[in-house]
Amino acid sequence: MSSNKIRVGIIGASGFVGGELLRILLRHPNVEITVATSREYKGEYVFKIHPHLRGQTMLRFVEPDIDKISNSCDVVFLAVPHGQSLHMVPKLLELGLRVLDLSADYRLKDPEAYVRWYDWREPHPYPDLLKKAVYGLPEIHRDELRNANLVAVAGCMATAGILSLLPLVRHRLIEFDKIVIDAKIGSSGAGAHAPRLDLHAYRTYVVRPYEVTEHRHIAEIEQELSLAAGEPVKVAFTPHAVDIVRGILVTSHSWARGSVTEPQLWKSFRETYLNEPFVRIARDKTGMHRYPDVKYVIGSNYCDVGFDIDSRLGRIVTFAAIDNLMKGAAGQAVQCFNIMMGFDERTALDLCPLFPV
Amino acid sequence: MSSNKIRVGIIGASGFVGGELLRILLRHPNVEITVATSREYKGEYVFKIHPHLRGQTMLRFVEPDIDKISNSCDVVFLAVPHGQSLHMVPKLLELGLRVLDLSADYRLKDPEAYVRWYDWREPHPYPDLLKKAVYGLPEIHRDELRNANLVAVAGCMATAGILSLLPLVRHRLIEFDKIVIDAKIGSSGAGAHAPRLDLHAYRTYVVRPYEVTEHRHIAEIEQELSLAAGEPVKVAFTPHAVDIVRGILVTSHSWARGSVTEPQLWKSFRETYLNEPFVRIARDKTGMHRYPDVKYVIGSNYCDVGFDIDSRLGRIVTFAAIDNLMKGAAGQAVQCFNIMMGFDERTALDLCPLFPV
Amino acid sequence: MSSNKIRVGIIGASGFVGGELLRILLRHPNVEITVATSREYKGEYVFKIHPHLRGQTMLRFVEPDIDKISNSCDVVFLAVPHGQSLHMVPKLLELGLRVLDLSADYRLKDPEAYVRWYDWREPHPYPDLLKKAVYGLPEIHRDELRNANLVAVAGCMATAGILSLLPLVRHRLIEFDKIVIDAKIGSSGAGAHAPRLDLHAYRTYVVRPYEVTEHRHIAEIEQELSLAAGEPVKVAFTPHAVDIVRGILVTSHSWARGSVTEPQLWKSFRETYLNEPFVRIARDKTGMHRYPDVKYVIGSNYCDVGFDIDSRLGRIVTFAAIDNLMKGAAGQAVQCFNIMMGFDERTALDLCPLFPV
Amino acid sequence: MSSNKIRVGIIGASGFVGGELLRILLRHPNVEITVATSREYKGEYVFKIHPHLRGQTMLRFVEPDIDKISNSCDVVFLAVPHGQSLHMVPKLLELGLRVLDLSADYRLKDPEAYVRWYDWREPHPYPDLLKKAVYGLPEIHRDELRNANLVAVAGCMATAGILSLLPLVRHRLIEFDKIVIDAKIGSSGAGAHAPRLDLHAYRTYVVRPYEVTEHRHIAEIEQELSLAAGEPVKVAFTPHAVDIVRGILVTSHSWARGSVTEPQLWKSFRETYLNEPFVRIARDKTGMHRYPDVKYVIGSNYCDVGFDIDSRLGRIVTFAAIDNLMKGAAGQAVQCFNIMMGFDERTALDLCPLFPV
Repeated sequence: MSSNKIRVGIIGASGFVGGELLRILLRHPNVEITVATSREYKGEYVFKIHPHLRGQTMLRFVEPDIDKISNSCDVVFLAVPHGQSLHMVPKLLELGLRVLDLSADYRLKDPEAYVRWYDWREPHPYPDLLKKAVYGLPEIHRDELRNANLVAVAGCMATAGILSLLPLVRHRLIEFDKIVIDAKIGSSGAGAHAPRLDLHAYRTYVVRPYEVTEHRHIAEIEQELSLAAGEPVKVAFTPHAVDIVRGILVTSHSWARGSVTEPQLWKSFRETYLNEPFVRIARDKTGMHRYPDVKYVIGSNYCDVGFDIDSRLGRIVTFAAIDNLMKGAAGQAVQCFNIMMGFDERTALDLCPLFPV
Repeated sequence: MSSNKIRVGIIGASGFVGGELLRILLRHPNVEITVATSREYKGEYVFKIHPHLRGQTMLRFVEPDIDKISNSCDVVFLAVPHGQSLHMVPKLLELGLRVLDLSADYRLKDPEAYVRWYDWREPHPYPDLLKKAVYGLPEIHRDELRNANLVAVAGCMATAGILSLLPLVRHRLIEFDKIVIDAKIGSSGAGAHAPRLDLHAYRTYVVRPYEVTEHRHIAEIEQELSLAAGEPVKVAFTPHAVDIVRGILVTSHSWARGSVTEPQLWKSFRETYLNEPFVRIARDKTGMHRYPDVKYVIGSNYCDVGFDIDSRLGRIVTFAAIDNLMKGAAGQAVQCFNIMMGFDERTALDLCPLFPV
Repeated sequence: MSSNKIRVGIIGASGFVGGELLRILLRHPNVEITVATSREYKGEYVFKIHPHLRGQTMLRFVEPDIDKISNSCDVVFLAVPHGQSLHMVPKLLELGLRVLDLSADYRLKDPEAYVRWYDWREPHPYPDLLKKAVYGLPEIHRDELRNANLVAVAGCMATAGILSLLPLVRHRLIEFDKIVIDAKIGSSGAGAHAPRLDLHAYRTYVVRPYEVTEHRHIAEIEQELSLAAGEPVKVAFTPHAVDIVRGILVTSHSWARGSVTEPQLWKSFRETYLNEPFVRIARDKTGMHRYPDVKYVIGSNYCDVGFDIDSRLGRIVTFAAIDNLMKGAAGQAVQCFNIMMGFDERTALDLCPLFPV
Repeated sequence: MSSNKIRVGIIGASGFVGGELLRILLRHPNVEITVATSREYKGEYVFKIHPHLRGQTMLRFVEPDIDKISNSCDVVFLAVPHGQSLHMVPKLLELGLRVLDLSADYRLKDPEAYVRWYDWREPHPYPDLLKKAVYGLPEIHRDELRNANLVAVAGCMATAGILSLLPLVRHRLIEFDKIVIDAKIGSSGAGAHAPRLDLHAYRTYVVRPYEVTEHRHIAEIEQELSLAAGEPVKVAFTPHAVDIVRGILVTSHSWARGSVTEPQLWKSFRETYLNEPFVRIARDKTGMHRYPDVKYVIGSNYCDVGFDIDSRLGRIVTFAAIDNLMKGAAGQAVQCFNIMMGFDERTALDLCPLFPV
């Protein structure tokens, strides 16, 4: 392991997102993973908890300790539950580390929004850091990411929601006050310490709505789409648990401003995504596979987007499919990291979707 | 088998809906199944194709033959593909039989609608029969069903879509021009002779949009909701295949007329469904199970409905969950049959959902 | 609720087996469920925890209290974890109740066996009760069940294992020292309070061996097969978790004593099971469904058995498929209860398997 | 694409195995895929049939034409149904190509075995080619693979079966006449043109035995284990369909020769597999993951093996878990190809299992 590799720490490495960061970064030619923390499994071999990594690494989990981390890392990925990054981030930054936070703690620009959406008692205590934090969605913030010290990696639902609507919003093709996002998500989003309802026998065979009107990712989606529009955009959002482990499909229903034609839609999607390495436009008039489907992105960092016009009613339907652990979390974090570090954005992310699965 | 039982024929008995009709009617105390037809499996024991029925019946499949059917049946259930009922129905009616057609061939009142929605070259050739046919959804047409000779059993998606919105439409709580129905459905809807994309390896792990703007059940839903409203109601409808076998959940997103309160919603749902034996209002403020979920209706004739208000945006979200083979097909057909025959509506339908599955 | 109904208590009613007992007994014409206990959910409506029962019962959970139970019940079903029945059973019997224990606490006749197989520190403290307890498998102990006051309902794996081999053992067709049972089981066997490995994301897509040589049900299987053989029978047993919720398939591999013919196998299975209301011989030479499959018994009390001869090697392969919550637990318990009470054995168990699911 | 790359053709590229070959070989630094054939989809973009490959290749399917193939390829992978390779192989070899045949047509050394196991009317017509063909299982035939012109890539079930038993057979730890292999396999093994029983609604929720005594892979397993033993080894084999898409777990039950200790087992496994790049010994005394499980190898070329002793009965239980499309087909073929070509055996196969899935 050459000394000119970036030394990376993964805080919260025993969960699903931590496992994905390991899977990706173990193959990153410019990275040496020096620290993987887990309070629950400290001292244990990483492959005992992530049995797919058997034979891939002899790394052991250590307890999270800011001093040790700062001595042995250049960059830290925080894959910890919401609320736990809050006070770690300023410490890590002060110690000169660069941080990619996969929690929600630095995603929202408005300190009050944490009271509104995350039930915090007080506004966010580090408003300056909120300003400095770059929202980790390269399709919108690539330039700012290049010099970022703190990246607040976009949420999984938010990534799919934003990318499904970004072309329509940028090109002002739809009305901004009656947008509906109907999302479907697998069980891995709930994490490795999920509650009883996520037991296999309870979680199979579901199509289960939850947080029907108040899902927290609404805040991110509205923040970013409003930024793209230059005016307030509101989204109504309802997620549903479905019987898969990985994957999110969002279906966005919106209403055309005046008459919108298919060539206009094509143009908006092409202009937005033509040079994006991880966005594929999946939209065919014929054949078996005409729209995005989570089945075709599993294991990869792709976001497949697609669209159709309901010309009878003036509705525009758009789709985005992602693997929530990849483009919705670990893959996107590494994409941001590559941009921060000046590496080719695709390094270690050239992972083909696994099909069929 | 006493002679005062109703003699019932099932045309198209080797498919999934045929199997469900058998499962239900074999336990119906007032029914004797005299005919079960299958061209493909004629001569074969029914339990060879429906192995769950082993030990339940020694019936054999016969070829569909109108004369034989008319001699041995009083009532016929048609569980055949769309288009195949069209000319059978008048013949069966002329021979004095009563008919429950589970195909779409007699559901729409407007003969031209078959050209528009079903790609028929000509309008429906029996407009008088369309008038006589009763749309088989007891929650709307119970009284007409009592004396019906021809029932066009409601479609699976249509049943869920209509029942999710009926209270809002009857009580005029929502705007009628921007209703979105986002549906999720299992694989059994595609039938036992489905194409390659329905192979297990292709059909697992999907969240797959299809017929995104032009699904045929839109015609039924608009017909019935417009009837309930007394004015045209339009619905935008997008279905998604998900990785379950049975079950439909529809999520209906609509926009409140003025301000709508939760008590108003409760009132509308209670007034519409309080006396309905197969509609359960699943709406809890706390606990693990707050909204309808397909998991809780599998194997039963229940339609679970629920709702919520997105007061921030004036959106109303409603849900309906059904087992597509039961309340979406065979169960509903038997419910209609019971009403037609003057039996207790619940006869042979007192089937508890199977949980967990 | 007429006073000549049997008053039944279900202790441990919030788990999956408890839910199945409720599903079955709510439809039992001779039963009134008077008590359903749950420490965790006392005071809560039963349907809040078992959402499929919404609309079926307004029963509430109560805390388990022996005195209250004894005052309001004639018969008690114990659906509690292993070890918790041990001291409740003698108390309930002393109070004059009849007991069906679904735990393992009274299944083994040898008090020492609990030290060997269940890691108890001491032998079973109630050896007299072990003698009185009837092993709850009607296919072997129907006559003793008729007057039983204490039934130790057979284990799920044990039921399938024993029934797959009983004809071979009774007819002495196989060698008794090299029997292999390879079992496959769904997730509901782990119960509603299962550990992290039973979370959906961990439990999907598994074919996972566990307790590879020391599964506790071996003790029951050997006890009952030795009884049937009149000499010691040993079984090697290895279970595997598979990605379904309900269901067990056991595949039993054994070696013929001398040459065994197919007619001999047929004879042994027919003689053993011909009059059994819940055992179906699923063995066809042609067709799509030639052997037992869990898919065809889900939701029912059936045990499907089948067999084949590997004449090249002198191996006999037999199968048994059950729904572990039904014939493997709640269904079998009610079957035993019906026999105890002198009811038709099939009362409330005339539940057709749900197919497809 | 540099001219010093190996030009590779994939015959039968539209199926699942073809898709995996594409997924792997598109990333192989020494390979240029020049031909991908499909009769059904000729002219179509590959990504239209393999939607996960969208954005990865603009290759189109062409019709299989021996002359064109020979002009544009150095090496050919045959991913065609059994029987279709038979006459193509000699033609391709005559034209100077090197061939990796993924069908069974050249796996068995005994020409008569095709009559016995594959129902051919005549013995294999090319016995000389059978002799030249190298059985494509690197763990046994690595040296012969180096100069092979024809590789008969091992079958999926056979690979798992052989690797689960090879250490025991080589070290003569078990009796060779009473070996039982109980296999569990996903749906992708049935291919992309599978019959009705492989439709999703029929194939979910199964634990379904099939070809219970006469599975064709027995011939390969016995051939290779007998070769390893230097004397005849017989295996009794029963496969089961389970509700996953990828993956095979075999559980091999055998009986110890005299007393066998755990250190002896460890020694036999270590000696057999220590230097194997794709075999992992998964055997832990503690922790959550003690034995092989298909869940931990999905998407990779790993074969995880494990073992335990049933000392009470003298049974030895061994396991092997593979992804049937990878180590059971495409991955193994590329591993053989790498050896043939003198590349590092792991080239393009450094694919981490995807977890959780």
